[in-house]
Amino acid sequence: MNEKGSTKRKILKTAARLFRQQGYHATGLNQIIQESGTPKGSLYHYFPNGKEELAVESIRITKANASLALMETLAPYHHVEEAFQALFAGFQEFVNNYDEEKEEGAPIGLLALETSSMSEPLRRICKESYEEWQKIFEAKMIECGIDQTRAKELSLVMIVLVEGAVTLSVVNKTSQPFIIIAKQIPSLLNKS
Amino acid sequence: MNEKGSTKRKILKTAARLFRQQGYHATGLNQIIQESGTPKGSLYHYFPNGKEELAVESIRITKANASLALMETLAPYHHVEEAFQALFAGFQEFVNNYDEEKEEGAPIGLLALETSSMSEPLRRICKESYEEWQKIFEAKMIECGIDQTRAKELSLVMIVLVEGAVTLSVVNKTSQPFIIIAKQIPSLLNKS
Repeated sequence: MNEKGSTKRKILKTAARLFRQQGYHATGLNQIIQESGTPKGSLYHYFPNGKEELAVESIRITKANASLALMETLAPYHHVEEAFQALFAGFQEFVNNYDEEKEEGAPIGLLALETSSMSEPLRRICKESYEEWQKIFEAKMIECGIDQTRAKELSLVMIVLVEGAVTLSVVNKTSQPFIIIAKQIPSLLNKS
Repeated sequence: MNEKGSTKRKILKTAARLFRQQGYHATGLNQIIQESGTPKGSLYHYFPNGKEELAVESIRITKANASLALMETLAPYHHVEEAFQALFAGFQEFVNNYDEEKEEGAPIGLLALETSSMSEPLRRICKESYEEWQKIFEAKMIECGIDQTRAKELSLVMIVLVEGAVTLSVVNKTSQPFIIIAKQIPSLLNKS
């Protein structure tokens, strides 16, 4: 990666960490500049429109990375129950092995709740993230024999379960919600 | 209500609104004082330990009010599917008729995600809220014939569904997630 790419990445990585730790509103551009150790001019060069533009880019990257990870997790399975149980087992593992130092993603659920009522660009990119993941789930369900109408609804339910389980696992400091949800997958996804 | 009670309530109501609109970190004590139109001394009188103490009290009130509302919603039903479908229909109605002026509750999901990693008192009161609601759901399920072990797990799934659906409905500006979840209740709660 060249110097320019590396500076931009440092800024985005620091911003994502601060968004995870303290949310959008409490994170100031000066703190991002200081903690990323990049020159002040760089942030304004890459993100001339400021914090909102930076957060949109941060969510866009997280959306793309998460989409890849979700597709990879679901790919090996040919039975829909197995595929989505593996998905929640994957989240459980992620929570258990969570490493704040290595994590680079923006906290989309938190940013969505914090900013949807005051920023259309942020609301839209959060919405697009959930829609993209929902499409991935839907495609897998259809591949496994669930009809399109049910697949569309059930894939929204999967997104809802993921986002709700993140909140409960943060509050309870445990990955247990993901295990409990994985157990319900067969009754939720029965093909009847 | 006497003068004292009314001042405290004004402070709490204003704080809850600001937490809903901009989250915990972005809400300052001065803004709460100004927008509630109460004397500066009152806030420090009622909440000598500041914003964290105020937020804990705000969540405690929301927890109690929500518990009452949840019990009232579930009470008329004797079949578990009907009871929990009514629950999600109730949330859908709440979203459709949402009135920012009348709403007095703190946004527990948002505050949980924002503060759990930096404030033990806030994490604990959010955790206690979810536990209290989970117990209400669990008792209803047991009353309707679901065995205790499953009732405990399924009631956590209900909390997860509620919290996740709030996020999706905020982002998508629609109450539709609650309708879609209500449709899945029968397969989730089948007694087999």
